[in-house]
Amino acid sequence: MTERCPLPSPPSSDVIQLAHGGGGRATWRLLHDHVLPALGLAGPALDAAALAPPPGARLAFTTDASVVRPLEFPGGNIGRLAVFGAVNDLAAAGARPLALSLSLILEEGLAMAVLHRVLASIADAAALAGVRVVTGDTKVVERGKADGLYTAVSGIGVVAPGVDVGPHRIRAGDVVVTTGDVGRHGVAILSVREGLGFEGVTSDCAPVTGLLDALLAADIELHCLRDPTRGGVSAVLHELAIDAGVAIAVHEPAIPIDPAVAAACELLGLDPLAMACEGRLLAIVPPAHADRAIAALRVHPDGARAAAIGVVESAPAGRVVATTVLGTRRVLDFSASEQLPRIC
Amino acid sequence: MTERCPLPSPPSSDVIQLAHGGGGRATWRLLHDHVLPALGLAGPALDAAALAPPPGARLAFTTDASVVRPLEFPGGNIGRLAVFGAVNDLAAAGARPLALSLSLILEEGLAMAVLHRVLASIADAAALAGVRVVTGDTKVVERGKADGLYTAVSGIGVVAPGVDVGPHRIRAGDVVVTTGDVGRHGVAILSVREGLGFEGVTSDCAPVTGLLDALLAADIELHCLRDPTRGGVSAVLHELAIDAGVAIAVHEPAIPIDPAVAAACELLGLDPLAMACEGRLLAIVPPAHADRAIAALRVHPDGARAAAIGVVESAPAGRVVATTVLGTRRVLDFSASEQLPRIC
Repeated sequence: MTERCPLPSPPSSDVIQLAHGGGGRATWRLLHDHVLPALGLAGPALDAAALAPPPGARLAFTTDASVVRPLEFPGGNIGRLAVFGAVNDLAAAGARPLALSLSLILEEGLAMAVLHRVLASIADAAALAGVRVVTGDTKVVERGKADGLYTAVSGIGVVAPGVDVGPHRIRAGDVVVTTGDVGRHGVAILSVREGLGFEGVTSDCAPVTGLLDALLAADIELHCLRDPTRGGVSAVLHELAIDAGVAIAVHEPAIPIDPAVAAACELLGLDPLAMACEGRLLAIVPPAHADRAIAALRVHPDGARAAAIGVVESAPAGRVVATTVLGTRRVLDFSASEQLPRIC
Repeated sequence: MTERCPLPSPPSSDVIQLAHGGGGRATWRLLHDHVLPALGLAGPALDAAALAPPPGARLAFTTDASVVRPLEFPGGNIGRLAVFGAVNDLAAAGARPLALSLSLILEEGLAMAVLHRVLASIADAAALAGVRVVTGDTKVVERGKADGLYTAVSGIGVVAPGVDVGPHRIRAGDVVVTTGDVGRHGVAILSVREGLGFEGVTSDCAPVTGLLDALLAADIELHCLRDPTRGGVSAVLHELAIDAGVAIAVHEPAIPIDPAVAAACELLGLDPLAMACEGRLLAIVPPAHADRAIAALRVHPDGARAAAIGVVESAPAGRVVATTVLGTRRVLDFSASEQLPRIC
């Protein structure tokens, strides 16, 4: 737009300044010189984007704020996390993403280079998930009133035809399937935050849309889907057990856990089942579909370690237990899911 | 859900704690005891909501982060602002709201009573705009990493049939109409923040959907709509002048400004045209429609002070000028719109 833009550039700035949030020329420059090009958005910065969903489509709508600390970590950064957070919530509703929005809250003094890296990751992550950021908003707060930057990504998705997932469909006897090994994101964050540097633990941060597609293509009857982020597998299973009024029993030896993740948890006295994943899906399926579901997932690169990890029991409602390798049972504690703040 | 919830209540807490963001039992309690009931959401807290838009509908999608300081101010609070911010962005796209999402970023130590008031305002504001919050996300950051609470509200709207608004439709000769007096929100915030206490200045914080309906019902040809929030009327007109490649001339004596707002701006050396509104719409209409547009707006309680305040000129592109009561012209400075951080 240079040919018709009469505005001189402001003095160059390597960091976010309060004026960038004032709504005037500096805001216009921040958006047009930095944010919009990074997201591949050309033309005027409109306050709302136009969408034309397929006729008759059932839509899913979600939002996900990201406040992870640090902003960049092994295997990802807040931008990837923000996009996949929304995309994976849509997948858990049986939906493929149609459009994303991006709200940014920037702290005065944030290095412009960090913002660029995060925005580039947002664009890359969206492309990987087959979607685009189509609208956004950017605010600036004073130094000491945020922690670099926070995001909120909302997503609209199109629910796959014939899909009806939710706690209301969970039945005793259903099988809990994980699409991969669990706990990696939580340990990756802990590793960099506490300076522990567990070798080789990177976040599993990824879109699960392809895994949903694999299940749908194999015609698996899906009763419920959830992505086990904050609070990990344990928190998600507790929520489902409460909402569906059932008990869930997981078989610990069947749960895929990376050896480095297991070692880190052992060392720190943490339960890997309570550590966040950011690229996994738990699928609750009827027993007759479990083997086919796992076979279908394993064909996908991100589903190589798919496994059946538990079964739904009729009672007591809300109870989640784990059977150990010795056959003993321990009750999982919902509160124990509160291990780490600002994991996502 | 008490009859099937096996979880004991945690020790009562008057403030937000880090555990409320951990994803475990405390998070579940925060959502089910506080957030969901306040928003009128019953049942399980799903990560995504289902929507069925009218067949063939064109949708608009928007997002708006709110970081206003202080959280509560004369005429509103961050909750009302957050809802109307999204609703009014949809209205500026010619759309009526269909559904909202709410992302909350809460600071450790935030009084639960403040959260309750803000949530109640969000529910009230949504009801006033004829819409509901259908999905959300809640995160908690450490003390000193936010400023009480921040929100991001996203909205999906249904574009009214036949409406096509945007800078691309602006033509020389078009008239700029405001739906009401300008600058009130900015002065109301300034008043409480700097302890100036200008008597009687309250925020204009309100949904503009009814005003859009009034224009549509009168069959006004709408070329462009914008809500003059951050940066005020001046910033919006600059953006439109740049995006449409036109000049805009406003006639200062025609611009409705509350006497208390004018007095406060005079005292502080601020330009009321650069002060934020949060319940106004600027409509760019063909000259033949201007009088009918104003008449239609004035029938609405929020449109009593609707007025034609300027005209679009063919050149120079991006220039916004104001003609004074004496007939002289001054060029409005886009940079002068950066008067106040965290106005919204």
